Amino acid sequence: MLYKSRIGSTFSEDTTIRFSTFNCLQNESNTEVYCGVSVKDAQRAAILATEAFRQFKKTDVSVRADFLNGIADELELQRSELIQMYCKESSLSAQRANSELDRTIFQLRSYGNYLLNEQWNRPLLSEPEHVPVRVETKLQAIGPVAVFGSSNFPFAYSTAGGDTASALAAGCPVIVKAHPMHAGTSWLVAECILKVVQEQQLPDGVFSHLLDNGHDVGEELVGNEFIKAVGFTGSIRGGRALMDLASKRDAPIPVFAEMGSINPVVFFQSELEKNLELWIDKFTTSISNDAGQFCTKPGLLFVSQSAEGIQFIAELKKQLSLTEPTCHLHPNLFKNYKEQVEESFKWITCKQPYHSQPVLREVTAREYLNDYNFYEEFFGPQAIAVLYKSQEELIEMLNKLGGQLTTTFIGSEEEFLANEEIIDRAKEKAGRIIFNGVPTGVTVCDAMVHGGTYPAASDSRFTAVGTQSIYRFLRPVAMQTIR
Amino acid sequence: MLYKSRIGSTFSEDTTIRFSTFNCLQNESNTEVYCGVSVKDAQRAAILATEAFRQFKKTDVSVRADFLNGIADELELQRSELIQMYCKESSLSAQRANSELDRTIFQLRSYGNYLLNEQWNRPLLSEPEHVPVRVETKLQAIGPVAVFGSSNFPFAYSTAGGDTASALAAGCPVIVKAHPMHAGTSWLVAECILKVVQEQQLPDGVFSHLLDNGHDVGEELVGNEFIKAVGFTGSIRGGRALMDLASKRDAPIPVFAEMGSINPVVFFQSELEKNLELWIDKFTTSISNDAGQFCTKPGLLFVSQSAEGIQFIAELKKQLSLTEPTCHLHPNLFKNYKEQVEESFKWITCKQPYHSQPVLREVTAREYLNDYNFYEEFFGPQAIAVLYKSQEELIEMLNKLGGQLTTTFIGSEEEFLANEEIIDRAKEKAGRIIFNGVPTGVTVCDAMVHGGTYPAASDSRFTAVGTQSIYRFLRPVAMQTIR
Repeated sequence: MLYKSRIGSTFSEDTTIRFSTFNCLQNESNTEVYCGVSVKDAQRAAILATEAFRQFKKTDVSVRADFLNGIADELELQRSELIQMYCKESSLSAQRANSELDRTIFQLRSYGNYLLNEQWNRPLLSEPEHVPVRVETKLQAIGPVAVFGSSNFPFAYSTAGGDTASALAAGCPVIVKAHPMHAGTSWLVAECILKVVQEQQLPDGVFSHLLDNGHDVGEELVGNEFIKAVGFTGSIRGGRALMDLASKRDAPIPVFAEMGSINPVVFFQSELEKNLELWIDKFTTSISNDAGQFCTKPGLLFVSQSAEGIQFIAELKKQLSLTEPTCHLHPNLFKNYKEQVEESFKWITCKQPYHSQPVLREVTAREYLNDYNFYEEFFGPQAIAVLYKSQEELIEMLNKLGGQLTTTFIGSEEEFLANEEIIDRAKEKAGRIIFNGVPTGVTVCDAMVHGGTYPAASDSRFTAVGTQSIYRFLRPVAMQTIR
Repeated sequence: MLYKSRIGSTFSEDTTIRFSTFNCLQNESNTEVYCGVSVKDAQRAAILATEAFRQFKKTDVSVRADFLNGIADELELQRSELIQMYCKESSLSAQRANSELDRTIFQLRSYGNYLLNEQWNRPLLSEPEHVPVRVETKLQAIGPVAVFGSSNFPFAYSTAGGDTASALAAGCPVIVKAHPMHAGTSWLVAECILKVVQEQQLPDGVFSHLLDNGHDVGEELVGNEFIKAVGFTGSIRGGRALMDLASKRDAPIPVFAEMGSINPVVFFQSELEKNLELWIDKFTTSISNDAGQFCTKPGLLFVSQSAEGIQFIAELKKQLSLTEPTCHLHPNLFKNYKEQVEESFKWITCKQPYHSQPVLREVTAREYLNDYNFYEEFFGPQAIAVLYKSQEELIEMLNKLGGQLTTTFIGSEEEFLANEEIIDRAKEKAGRIIFNGVPTGVTVCDAMVHGGTYPAASDSRFTAVGTQSIYRFLRPVAMQTIR
């Protein structure tokens, strides 16, 4: 069977483009063959999405909530097939696959149910004193949204992931460009969504799914006049390329790109004294889990210079060296990681292909300040530790960093107070400040902020996770009448 | 006296750049001489603003409300001097000057008072069921903002205008680049603001004021790493240039540009039958008032083809030809308007220099559809009228338009219902839909949306007028603790 793209209810035309996915654990290609979509069909999807938009934007919130809950139900029904495909395309465990699918389902349901609360889009009403008019403002859906599947979250940040769920909740049709590394998982999820579109008699074109292993189709979507916003989760290079394309359009559109973050962690003295073992355990897992391929993986640890600090680094190093080598999601990600870290940092090879040994590298404050550019995250099971000997040195090191998804502080209330200025500065860069926790694990809830200043995210005024992400795809429109 | 820029509390260094403003009514240069600021001083202002930001962002809302109310008080005290300078730099009437100053003062007070309502930045709080954490999110000030004075609102959209008031309300320091056409008005307003900064002991650098008649200083501000957002009101060309500069930065920043709009008006049959004289009166004023140099001036009238429609156009034409010629704000604006309209449209010269005769030009639907590009507004006392003979023709003509600040419908409830689809499509482009009113006159209130899709505004998700404009300069930051 040749897997094809879906332009709403129809299949894409044939092209000569063929590709398959790869199983790193087995070191072999998967057998399914995917047909790359034509640029012409991508354009067709954009036009169809615009037609669907005219109806979909006017649907009652209950219709959209039913749609999202319907997708969640269908994913649950297809769970075993989805998990199987996910595992052979990502080399991640069935446990991880299941928990990511749980999260995806929860996300769809919580965004859908959020719409049922009248407060979510409460009209603003003004009747100005000296003018006999009435102005009523409500949020309107922005238009068709192009969503790019992410490499590291085949469920939660891809086909039916956060960007799709929030755009559909807002009333925007979605065109997904599947991530080529997990085209099969994406295809199966798309089938679930399209089944619900048909069953619930939603407008044709409210969802399309494009298979592609190049750049032309993505560029067409971002440049296409009918596309009104873009959702992306991935590298700085990839996200910036989309931002640049969108800003060069005749009519620029917003790109919501969640990109790279090194996620600094500051260890103050007291917790190293009180809970050394606890933090060694927690950070061993947080750095190495699923090959460290999380956008919130802690990549940079600032540790108070003391006997306990030195011990913490030594023990964390040891624990990481004792964990099992972890398998990267895809040969490309493995290659990128290797190239990025082997030049400056430790690279631990393993016998098994596409595996690497989790590792902590220690650098001195002088090395850190003089030699490295920590603008880019390293997307793998590795972190850097630096001892700091004073608040001034810590501030100097933190100042070198760009925008962050998270910044974490481990310490006592007294230490947080004494370092208020540092925490305050961290808030200028990060979307989320964590006290006494690990940065990995982004809870889907109303208050979550998964964002931050560039390059963590393209637009720090919005979040990519949680119900507030819906507001990325809405714009206010005022209706003025006489009174 | 040589007028210089202010870098916080200090004056700018001397340069060789000198310029003056111009009085179109008198056809002569004003006598005051302004010293252009150096790029180095612009950089100094940005650094000083960042230092001020660290304190200012943490001020209690009452401090910022007092600041805005203090500026309002000071402007009121200096009213007569301000009005005098305004009139000789803009050639607008004292009546207009006074009402614009009233609006500016009202704006400052209402944005300040908005902060005193606890709801304006209500924290979002989540305690997710399965994770023992507490996530609390509040909006934080984004950082120093560069504000470009507008040509047509020397008070309300310049030095102490909407962008400045909303940025200061949010907790962001402001650097104003004065519009060179009314440098004197800007200088006087800046003095008022700086006096309040000193009296209220606000951090030095929370406000700076740059005089400049070129492009280098503006480019420096938009590219400067310490500037975190830009506010601009002006032409599409100018706004787009700033958007392009900002998107090319290492770390792109948002530009809130309110640019060009042709503000279409659709006249349905019933009101032409019932209230012909009323609408002729209202639109004569709306098109010609203050030389038509309003961003919401109605530039394009679609009139139902009927005896009354034909009469409406003929009468409106006549009334406009009988109004007094109006004086443009500045030789540059006069020149731009003349160049833009003389090629395709009617150009009515007058004896007095820098004046032009308000005019309505009628084109056929065929001419409209084939010959013209209505993407750009024409910034002067001119409008185009087209008769439409069917709903289909009207839709075809509306489809040619880009993003709009406003779209207006004049008719009965029954006609609005019968044309629901047309109104619905207008909402995809415009920030404000007006029923049975004129588009000029933007009321400052909570529900106002002065925005729209590109090119009306750079980012349709925000408004430039009304209290909600404060949210342009804020970003959410989550604080995650254990529970």
